[in-house]
Amino acid sequence: MNDREPRRIVIVGGVAGGMSAAARARRLDERAEIVVLEQSDYVSFANCGLPYHLSGDIERRDDLLLHTPASLGAALALDVRTGNRVTAIDRAARTVSVTTSESSYQLAYDALLLSPGAVAVRPPIDGLDHPAVHSLRTIPDLDALDEHVTRLVDGRSDDDRARAVVVGAGFIGLEAVEALVARGLEVDVVELADHVLPPLDAELAPLLADELKAHDVGLFLGVSAQALNPASDTALSVVLSDGTALSADLVLVNVGVRPASDLARDAGLALGRHGAIRVDEDQRTSDPHIWAVGDAVEVIHAVTGTVGPVPLAGPANRQGRRAADSMLGRRTTPQAAVLGTAIVRVFGLTAAVTGANQQTLAQAGIAHEVVRIHPGHHAGYFPGAAQIHLVASFAPDGRLLGAQAVGRDGVDKRIDVLATALRAEMTADDLAELELAYAPPYGSAKDPVNMLGFVAQNVLDGTTPQWHPGELDDVLADTLVLDVRSQGEFDRGHLKGALHIPHTELRGRLDEVHAAAAGRPVSVHCASGVRSHIATRVLLAAELDARNLSGGWLTLTALRPDLVP
Amino acid sequence: MNDREPRRIVIVGGVAGGMSAAARARRLDERAEIVVLEQSDYVSFANCGLPYHLSGDIERRDDLLLHTPASLGAALALDVRTGNRVTAIDRAARTVSVTTSESSYQLAYDALLLSPGAVAVRPPIDGLDHPAVHSLRTIPDLDALDEHVTRLVDGRSDDDRARAVVVGAGFIGLEAVEALVARGLEVDVVELADHVLPPLDAELAPLLADELKAHDVGLFLGVSAQALNPASDTALSVVLSDGTALSADLVLVNVGVRPASDLARDAGLALGRHGAIRVDEDQRTSDPHIWAVGDAVEVIHAVTGTVGPVPLAGPANRQGRRAADSMLGRRTTPQAAVLGTAIVRVFGLTAAVTGANQQTLAQAGIAHEVVRIHPGHHAGYFPGAAQIHLVASFAPDGRLLGAQAVGRDGVDKRIDVLATALRAEMTADDLAELELAYAPPYGSAKDPVNMLGFVAQNVLDGTTPQWHPGELDDVLADTLVLDVRSQGEFDRGHLKGALHIPHTELRGRLDEVHAAAAGRPVSVHCASGVRSHIATRVLLAAELDARNLSGGWLTLTALRPDLVP
Repeated sequence: MNDREPRRIVIVGGVAGGMSAAARARRLDERAEIVVLEQSDYVSFANCGLPYHLSGDIERRDDLLLHTPASLGAALALDVRTGNRVTAIDRAARTVSVTTSESSYQLAYDALLLSPGAVAVRPPIDGLDHPAVHSLRTIPDLDALDEHVTRLVDGRSDDDRARAVVVGAGFIGLEAVEALVARGLEVDVVELADHVLPPLDAELAPLLADELKAHDVGLFLGVSAQALNPASDTALSVVLSDGTALSADLVLVNVGVRPASDLARDAGLALGRHGAIRVDEDQRTSDPHIWAVGDAVEVIHAVTGTVGPVPLAGPANRQGRRAADSMLGRRTTPQAAVLGTAIVRVFGLTAAVTGANQQTLAQAGIAHEVVRIHPGHHAGYFPGAAQIHLVASFAPDGRLLGAQAVGRDGVDKRIDVLATALRAEMTADDLAELELAYAPPYGSAKDPVNMLGFVAQNVLDGTTPQWHPGELDDVLADTLVLDVRSQGEFDRGHLKGALHIPHTELRGRLDEVHAAAAGRPVSVHCASGVRSHIATRVLLAAELDARNLSGGWLTLTALRPDLVP
Repeated sequence: MNDREPRRIVIVGGVAGGMSAAARARRLDERAEIVVLEQSDYVSFANCGLPYHLSGDIERRDDLLLHTPASLGAALALDVRTGNRVTAIDRAARTVSVTTSESSYQLAYDALLLSPGAVAVRPPIDGLDHPAVHSLRTIPDLDALDEHVTRLVDGRSDDDRARAVVVGAGFIGLEAVEALVARGLEVDVVELADHVLPPLDAELAPLLADELKAHDVGLFLGVSAQALNPASDTALSVVLSDGTALSADLVLVNVGVRPASDLARDAGLALGRHGAIRVDEDQRTSDPHIWAVGDAVEVIHAVTGTVGPVPLAGPANRQGRRAADSMLGRRTTPQAAVLGTAIVRVFGLTAAVTGANQQTLAQAGIAHEVVRIHPGHHAGYFPGAAQIHLVASFAPDGRLLGAQAVGRDGVDKRIDVLATALRAEMTADDLAELELAYAPPYGSAKDPVNMLGFVAQNVLDGTTPQWHPGELDDVLADTLVLDVRSQGEFDRGHLKGALHIPHTELRGRLDEVHAAAAGRPVSVHCASGVRSHIATRVLLAAELDARNLSGGWLTLTALRPDLVP
């Protein structure tokens, strides 16, 4: 399709990837006929904004509707048809079958782009059809939920708040929780994994859990919802796998999505893992006249090399642009493997991830060393520095494999820098040498990202061996624990049997360590790992077999709250 | 010095690079004797925090003193000697001559590290010795200035505010301006360059100028201070090169720094350009037993390849760490060339730079294409999106050369991402494919950095040719200007002789364009460059020789405020 004749491009799905493709195609080719077929009544709506209209952050519903068929027609001469559902593709004839509320028709294409998105997974729960049960994927979903919430809070007092149960504590689930709390509901969250936000490493999740509890959100982790039993005309009882019953005036189910690839499958296009549409680097499917983008297609994960769908708006938009280039015979930028960069606001906290988390690396059998730091988001001497809890994994050769962070400020910046570093296949040495913008209100002369590099260098080259929170039982059984924090910190809670010597006194009290260790390794820790790093170096120089606790008491007690009295 | 014998490391200068080296050396080598000689009374103070104690942001002066000789002795067993000035180096004997207020002595070294920093340039102005004239490089400078300001504002009314003149509108000058305004002074700024913050491209500086004026700061650009004449016992008259006389109760001079390399020069060490100490990749000087770091040493600029000193805290700290590694015979990470990443807060605005600016590229004769965008700092449909004014330069092969940004929020994040991209030698294609964290409160599915990549791709591959604000005179003389903004925008100000057709009407009114162009090129513009990009593509398809104004009306009127009625 790279000659100069006008042709028809048909695009199935008018959100994110599909609409990016349509707009790009028009900018590249003024003569092509471009038809967008959208089964719903809305195109180009702000999918990621839905929870924020529910919360009231985005006041006007119309602000979610970024474009209309009329505005797209005027600006880009696109033929946008809402309420037009594609039911079949005839690949031999190069036509699609389209159904509207009034009729059906065939539409021929020269190039076809599929951007069908994903559909909500329907978990095996009895009672999902109750009118108090909602999902949150589309504008009609939002409208129904919003109307229901308005009805529930109307006229109720603080003593008689309506109750919501959110099933699934993923990204959208947590955004919905925040929105429902903002609307005045009492909210419980049910999550099958043992921690909220399953893509986050378990050690960072307690920070989010504490923030949720501080807003009176009930957490039910490691359990599933088994049944939604009618409790009255309007209310439900949500029965969990451990027998708990939660009363609810409203239930929101968000347990993930699956590719909406039925149309592609029925047309005989090659599907990959998890039913996602298989595409090449140019977004072309197994049919040379059909391209596909967005939540429905298979991508390669940059770190693990695994393939599968990744439902994220950013990659979908870029895929749409690339598909348009390819359909119009232009040079395309090869599809970069997906990092899975994602972010969520949970009340006052931000949590963000990029690359592979520890669990994924372990499952994939990828050797890695984990580094944990807890720096301020800007210079400590400037008021308002907020602690960032930052975890990163590195390959033995120093290559960054993934990073995660939680904090009140500056989290998005560090994860974006690390996502850029991941794309560039940077190493710990490279992170150490990054030259980031420093003035006291914004960062530190040694930015948290530089610090990650420094610590990783020390770990990887053997300067400072680490021990990890997960090794606590062995450490307690087989080694001397040396706590180098201050007396006050020690008094507020410490490991049983720990020898306590503040790091500033260590050089003068090495005999005590030798005596207590009695030939055993010494497992050092402080609050965050900084003072204990110095102490570990002192001990190693004194011929002791010393290791430093990665992430310190902060990470340890996040995973083991039972250690704090 | 990599055997196991204890040796003596002597470090001259106890701030930033010097203290980073001392701390790293101790962590690597428990037996070395480490002596830090600091001529002032303070080590390890927060140099970059000085303006923020003056402003009151940092309330306690002690918060600026990050460490003391005692704390460094306790934690790191460093022998830190303040008030100890090194007057000479005997390289053959490997000793330094040290002077204190009471005596002099010789100190032998096995390894010597020079971290002397920089000294304020003393401009050729008469009257600099007046007691109302200050600089702001050290704690004593800050104390004197703070005391003077306190005296000036004490008991004065709003009608009788004290007046300050700040000479030099660089990074520290602007921070000082903000601080003095916060303290209640009326402030004038004098800058020799034709715009504030000379490292910033001229087109972004007007945003800062407007912010300064909005806080009643007087701007005197393109002029120098020639004389500081006593006007009374306590006040001065600052006479400018254009004859203007500014009255001042206080004058702060900040016209840059030069390397404090006298000691190195007197010892016969090789100096480079601008008198900076020449070092190799390991920070070693021309003497194999002497290393040097920080503001006094020569670095290579990553983009231009030019060499010279760059007085920034981040590189200084990393150089100190690297020098310690080298002194102790460890593998070092080669010194990365310097990007010059820097940032400043100017009241509610942030300005940041990385890599080479347009002026530097032009002077160095490096071919480049400039791309300008004005996106929101997060999704436009989420409340509070603040416009970022973002400018970047790309080589013809697509490689990023430099970037600058000004805005109220999200500027530091984008410049840090771009600084990381610069370090990785990324291209426009790479920026387009970056996968940054997106949720409505934090960014957009197409982040501003992605958008930079998209626009640069279109420019570099010829999809959308650009014209630039600097070409305005030629454009007005030789081409048809087509303004595709809305009627309301057009009515509020437009280029003389421009044809006005809103972009949504363009396809139906191409005949008008053909007629008006009469064979001439068509120079299209809108407000920011987005709508005019679509329009340019429409015109090119209609066989017109069309170009799109880079940065749109926003950039054009920043450089040419006379165009706005």
